[in-house]
Amino acid sequence: MQTLTVAVVGATGLVGRTICQILAQGPRRPRRLVALCSPRGAGSCVAYGDQQLRTAALAADSFAGVDLVLMSAGSAVSARWAPIAAAAGALVVDNSACFRGAAQVPLVVPEVNPHALLTLPARGIVANPNCATIQTVVALAPLHRAFAACEVVLCTYQAASGAGREGLQWLASGAADAASGERLAANCVPQIGPLTDPHAASGEEQKIVAETKQILEAPQLQVAATCVRVPVEVGHSVAVHVRFARPFDLALARRLLAVAPGVALLGEAGGKAFATARTAAGTDSVYVGRLRGGGEPHVAAFFCVADNLRKGAATNAVQIAELVAPLLARRRPARLQDTND
Amino acid sequence: MQTLTVAVVGATGLVGRTICQILAQGPRRPRRLVALCSPRGAGSCVAYGDQQLRTAALAADSFAGVDLVLMSAGSAVSARWAPIAAAAGALVVDNSACFRGAAQVPLVVPEVNPHALLTLPARGIVANPNCATIQTVVALAPLHRAFAACEVVLCTYQAASGAGREGLQWLASGAADAASGERLAANCVPQIGPLTDPHAASGEEQKIVAETKQILEAPQLQVAATCVRVPVEVGHSVAVHVRFARPFDLALARRLLAVAPGVALLGEAGGKAFATARTAAGTDSVYVGRLRGGGEPHVAAFFCVADNLRKGAATNAVQIAELVAPLLARRRPARLQDTND
Repeated sequence: MQTLTVAVVGATGLVGRTICQILAQGPRRPRRLVALCSPRGAGSCVAYGDQQLRTAALAADSFAGVDLVLMSAGSAVSARWAPIAAAAGALVVDNSACFRGAAQVPLVVPEVNPHALLTLPARGIVANPNCATIQTVVALAPLHRAFAACEVVLCTYQAASGAGREGLQWLASGAADAASGERLAANCVPQIGPLTDPHAASGEEQKIVAETKQILEAPQLQVAATCVRVPVEVGHSVAVHVRFARPFDLALARRLLAVAPGVALLGEAGGKAFATARTAAGTDSVYVGRLRGGGEPHVAAFFCVADNLRKGAATNAVQIAELVAPLLARRRPARLQDTND
Repeated sequence: MQTLTVAVVGATGLVGRTICQILAQGPRRPRRLVALCSPRGAGSCVAYGDQQLRTAALAADSFAGVDLVLMSAGSAVSARWAPIAAAAGALVVDNSACFRGAAQVPLVVPEVNPHALLTLPARGIVANPNCATIQTVVALAPLHRAFAACEVVLCTYQAASGAGREGLQWLASGAADAASGERLAANCVPQIGPLTDPHAASGEEQKIVAETKQILEAPQLQVAATCVRVPVEVGHSVAVHVRFARPFDLALARRLLAVAPGVALLGEAGGKAFATARTAAGTDSVYVGRLRGGGEPHVAAFFCVADNLRKGAATNAVQIAELVAPLLARRRPARLQDTND
C-alpha cells in the first residue's frame, strides 16, 4: 500500500471514518490518502492516525493520480462515481450494493475467495459484500469445505450502526423511522432494507442469501434468512443453522475453525462458550461461539459476531485493497509513462 | 371460574402479578382469590382489579378449600409445593419447568392441544409451557396440520422480563450477570438457562425443542433452536423457518392463520407486514408477520411476537384454568361432601 495513492469516498460517514483510521496503521498506510465526501461535508476533517485530513468535495477531477478508491457513500453515489473513477484508471472497492452480483465485478472476502482477485477485474470495480454476509461466510466457509453445506438458515441480530449515522439516531431518539414505522429502542424490527412485498424477503435478506451463495461458489446451496435490527449500537450477531451433505464432526470442525483465517473460536473447556456484540466491537475478528451438532448427524449450529463497521465493512475493504495492492503497484510505472506520453 | 377458589403462588412476581390482573377481569374472576408468596414478601399487596390483595406466606394449610392453584415461583418452589397442593385436592397449573415432560402431566396450550385436558390429570398437575414455545406453537400448529412440518429452525429474540425482575435489573443496571458473564444492555446474549457444555444446547433451547415436539404431538419433527436474550423489556420475538413434507401454499396458509385462535395475522396488502415486541406488550395475541415461502416449494418462514408475561405465561395459565374450570366445578359438591364425612 505504501506506494499507492488512495482515495476514500464517503470519508465523513461511519464506515469512511473507520477506513481512514484503519489505513493510518503501519504497513497499511498509503503513500497519500485523499478524503472525499459530499459538497455539504467538504472542508470538515477526519482523523487519520495523529493527523486530521481535510475533506474535499467529490468532483470529476478527484481521481487524477489515484490508484485505488475505497467508496462508501451509498448506492446512488457509487452508481454515478465508481465508473468515473474506474475510467480514470483507479481500482474501486465499492462498499455499496450497487455492483454486487454484476458481471465481471468480483465479490470478495479475502479469507474466503481471494482467488476471485488473481487478476485486476475488467471493469475496475470490486464489490465489498454485505456486512452480515461477510461474517457469516468467514465462519461458514471452512465448515462448508469439510462437510458440504446443503441448507443454511441465517437469523441475524443487526446493530443500528449498520444503517449508518441515521440508524444510530433512530435508536437513540426512541422515535419510529419512515421505512418500517417502528421504534428501535427496546424493540426488534424484522425489516432491514426495502420490503416491496409483505410476503417476500426483505432487501437485506435477498442480499445475504445471494451473496452467501456467490462467495461460497455454491449456487445449489439453499439459504434462507430472517434479518432483524436489534437495539445495539455496534456489532452484528448471526445465528447459523446448517444441514450438511456429510456427517458433521464437532472435533474436526473445531480444528478447522481454530486455524481458519479471521476466525476467533470460543468454547474451549473452562473458557467462554461465545462472544457477543460488545466483545466484537472495535476488533477485526469474526467470533464463532456456541458451535454444536444437532440431534442428528448432519446438522450443526453456531453463533457468530463481528464489528459491522470494521470486518463487516471497512476492514474487509482494506483487506481487499491489500490483496490487489501488488497488482496496482506493478502497473503504476506504465500509467506514469502513459501520463508522460 | 366464578364458583372456584383460586390461589396464586408467587403472587408478587412479574408473572404472578399479571395473573392477578387477568383474573380480576369479568368472567375470569374466581369466587375467591388467595395471593401467596414467600415469607419474605408476605404482607405486601398485589393489585386485583380495583382492590389490593394482601399476600400470605405459603404454608402447609394454604390449600384448604382451594380448587385451583396457579403456581409461578420457580422450579424449586413448584417441586416442593405442587405435590402438596395436589394432595390437598387442588389442581395445579404450574408455570415452572419442573413437571414439564413428566408422565401424566399434560403440557397444554389451549389453542393447540386442549384435548390433552379432556379429563383432569391423574397427578393433579398441568404444566404451562415455556414462554417462547407457547407463541411458536400457536402460530406453527395450523401450518403443521396443513403442510406437515418436518424440520423447524427457531431463533429467538427474548425479552429481559423472561428472566423475571432479575432480568429487568440485569438490563437496566448495565452490569454483567453471573450466569453468562455478559451485559445485556446494548448487547445480544446467546445463552438462556444453563449451558452445561459449551457444545450443547442451552437449557432454554432444550425446552423449546422438546416442548414444541410434545405440544404438536410430533416426536419425529426435527427442531433446532438458538435462544438469545435481547435488550428489550417485554415481548419475545421468534423467527421461524420450516420445511414441510407437503408443498407450502401461501394463500392457504394465510386463510388458516386468519381464523386460527389466538393469532393476529399481519401482512394484508397496504397494512403492516409484521408486529414487534412493542406491539405485543400488554396484549394476549400471538402476532404472525413476515409470512413467506422460500425459494423452493416446501419451505416457509414467519416472525411471531407475543407478550412473554401474558400469552407466554400468565394468560396461557389462566386459559388452562378456564379449560378445566367446568371439571373442577363439577367435582366440588363431592369434595364438600368428603369434607363433611
